[in-house]
Amino acid sequence: MIYIRNASQVVTVAGASSAPKTGDDMGQLHVIENGGVVTEGDTIVFVGSDEEAGQFVETHAASGEVTIIDAAGKLVTPGLIDPHTHIVFAGSREHELNMRLEGATYMDILNAGGGILSSTEKTREASEEQLAAETRKRLDRFLAYGVTTIEAKSGYGLRLEDELKQLRVAKVLNEEHPIDLVSTFMGAHAVPLEYKKDPDAYVKIVREQMIPAVAREQLAEYCDVFCEEGVFTPEQSRAVLETGLRWGLKPKIHADELVSYGGAELAAEIGAVSAEHLLNASAEGIRAMARQGVIAVLLPGTAFFLMTKPANARAMIQAGVPVALSTDRNPGSCPTESLPFIMNLACFSMRMTPAEVLTACTINAAHAIGRADRIGSLEAGKQADIVMFDAPNYMYLQYHYAVNLVDAVIKKGKPVILDGKRVQG
Amino acid sequence: MIYIRNASQVVTVAGASSAPKTGDDMGQLHVIENGGVVTEGDTIVFVGSDEEAGQFVETHAASGEVTIIDAAGKLVTPGLIDPHTHIVFAGSREHELNMRLEGATYMDILNAGGGILSSTEKTREASEEQLAAETRKRLDRFLAYGVTTIEAKSGYGLRLEDELKQLRVAKVLNEEHPIDLVSTFMGAHAVPLEYKKDPDAYVKIVREQMIPAVAREQLAEYCDVFCEEGVFTPEQSRAVLETGLRWGLKPKIHADELVSYGGAELAAEIGAVSAEHLLNASAEGIRAMARQGVIAVLLPGTAFFLMTKPANARAMIQAGVPVALSTDRNPGSCPTESLPFIMNLACFSMRMTPAEVLTACTINAAHAIGRADRIGSLEAGKQADIVMFDAPNYMYLQYHYAVNLVDAVIKKGKPVILDGKRVQG
Repeated sequence: MIYIRNASQVVTVAGASSAPKTGDDMGQLHVIENGGVVTEGDTIVFVGSDEEAGQFVETHAASGEVTIIDAAGKLVTPGLIDPHTHIVFAGSREHELNMRLEGATYMDILNAGGGILSSTEKTREASEEQLAAETRKRLDRFLAYGVTTIEAKSGYGLRLEDELKQLRVAKVLNEEHPIDLVSTFMGAHAVPLEYKKDPDAYVKIVREQMIPAVAREQLAEYCDVFCEEGVFTPEQSRAVLETGLRWGLKPKIHADELVSYGGAELAAEIGAVSAEHLLNASAEGIRAMARQGVIAVLLPGTAFFLMTKPANARAMIQAGVPVALSTDRNPGSCPTESLPFIMNLACFSMRMTPAEVLTACTINAAHAIGRADRIGSLEAGKQADIVMFDAPNYMYLQYHYAVNLVDAVIKKGKPVILDGKRVQG
Repeated sequence: MIYIRNASQVVTVAGASSAPKTGDDMGQLHVIENGGVVTEGDTIVFVGSDEEAGQFVETHAASGEVTIIDAAGKLVTPGLIDPHTHIVFAGSREHELNMRLEGATYMDILNAGGGILSSTEKTREASEEQLAAETRKRLDRFLAYGVTTIEAKSGYGLRLEDELKQLRVAKVLNEEHPIDLVSTFMGAHAVPLEYKKDPDAYVKIVREQMIPAVAREQLAEYCDVFCEEGVFTPEQSRAVLETGLRWGLKPKIHADELVSYGGAELAAEIGAVSAEHLLNASAEGIRAMARQGVIAVLLPGTAFFLMTKPANARAMIQAGVPVALSTDRNPGSCPTESLPFIMNLACFSMRMTPAEVLTACTINAAHAIGRADRIGSLEAGKQADIVMFDAPNYMYLQYHYAVNLVDAVIKKGKPVILDGKRVQG
């Protein structure tokens, strides 16, 4: 039994219903001042005032079996959840930065054989062991920043064996690392060089070879596609996602990142769990997403790194779209693991409130990866994924910005970070 | 003797002259691939190729007395220098954030009795011990982010005994903490509430009581003033800085932050070492600064946190003004210690290049606090203030952004951070 004692604030983010939070409800965090949280095994067994928590421990714990974590002056929240990463890849692309500072666009770099395709080359060359080693380092950083669950997309292999390799690495790391990984197949992340003249032939391979192989080997829960001018058309995207659905892979979609291209509309039509990026989503697309309950996964770090305007989070919240946030961790357009910094950016570049961003990185993010029944809020019965921050209240997370305030992380009831340091073993 | 061995890159930032770097020269870093650095006592004794460094060690070290730091795959740079902080204060101001997200300006909050004045209240109430404890925690964070020297301004006391208290705390911490603190007296940081109706009377106290007391007690090297519409006029600012000069305090100036107010021009006229903020500096002011060699200390984190447009760094570099960067660490407009993140912001919000930002946070920052003869570059004879980053090259610092890449910090020849963790004792 672990007793997190006397926290300055415990923020439960619990909701009134089991639906993702929308509108004003995104700002309702359920804050307990002087709170306590008790866990047993991998489960939260009590959340409430510290006085009641103390009584609970007294009643339920055999003496000597309680580990106390002193949370005086600290903030306790659900473990952070990142619902959109491309974490499994090889290499880095810092050399594109000077080109971009001189004005080259994402598409310029892609068309010059850089961008996603250069990461594909390195990822294809890498062994499973190399890929796992590079990815493990990124997972360690995520954990250090309070992230306890992430989604991980394939999409740098772009041929059957290498897409499977990426997903197998995610599977191995999910078993081995404290962070839980939820896998998404994204063979349709780019058209590989060898199919540049015949993208439809590549789409056929994705649908007829890759998706069945991924599904048979149970390597993914979701299927994603980069629906974008110059990448995959809405028709190709729909075909990929429908094939995925037939094989039991739930649809996600990279939508309207660079131009308005009908991605948000398609997400609503096809009943996608989430649509991601959405910098150029149309007003009609946003309304359609709201009607269908499609979650918007917004990635302000990508806009920051690409020096473009971020998505219009406020319009989506006002329209009733549930909003989640993510790093988009990838080697080309958002090389950071700091989800807390993405929260800062959501405040300062998209003017989301401190309450909204915490909802977006906990319960709404859990919904975006189909885990809201087990994680994303601090409630008795849920998995004990908990972060303690060196912050007196949740607003402080957005105030004392761009530094790592994580003090402790508990994953499935096990302390994995204490005093800001990784607990080994 | 310490031998930093086989670094992927050693970036010396050494200049051709002893002047601050300007124009294209800001992009000249002097990069040694496969480099080595050797220190003896608190001094750098060799910088060059790793092969030569190895030979140097072999020739000069008695056996067994060499500590080897393996820098394979790592980047080695001068210790980072922050030339503009208000680090000595009490309390925090996260509660202003929601007001600001709803549209309140810096001046709205100040006029409502918040802002600087609320920090003044808390700082006045705090004992020296309390102030030192809060500040020590901030210094620890600075060090964790690779910062080895900072400037520290007073200006939350706003009456004689409390201004002296702040400066005494900085003096004590300078002796006790690995980070060197360079003190600036800034009694003219705001007009205190009790002089709101008669700012000139307050300016008189600053000039006739505070400056002489600070100088006699040798508590500061610099004198700064907030020259801004609604705070201190150019005339009041000039009077304060001239009095400071007579007492041996070199002038700095908070100039043209919120409106164009002649601050850059005044800095040039009075021969200030540096002018800081400069978001609204006039073209003529910038030209005058270039002519006089006044260093521009730019604070893009403050613009980010206040959600305004940052200073025009490119125009200043093109005009020949030497540019330095800083966090502006303070409780109201920039509560971060991550100078590396400020470097990221300088790239992505001001389009400075990775080479320029490193110059701005090392040798040019050293010039801004009068320490360029001893720190700011890796050269034999200089003080051994060195950072090792988990990065293969200097561009990577701006690429893998918003996370802490610091692996080791050596301050005055002593390892104070190793493997990303503080070395105690």
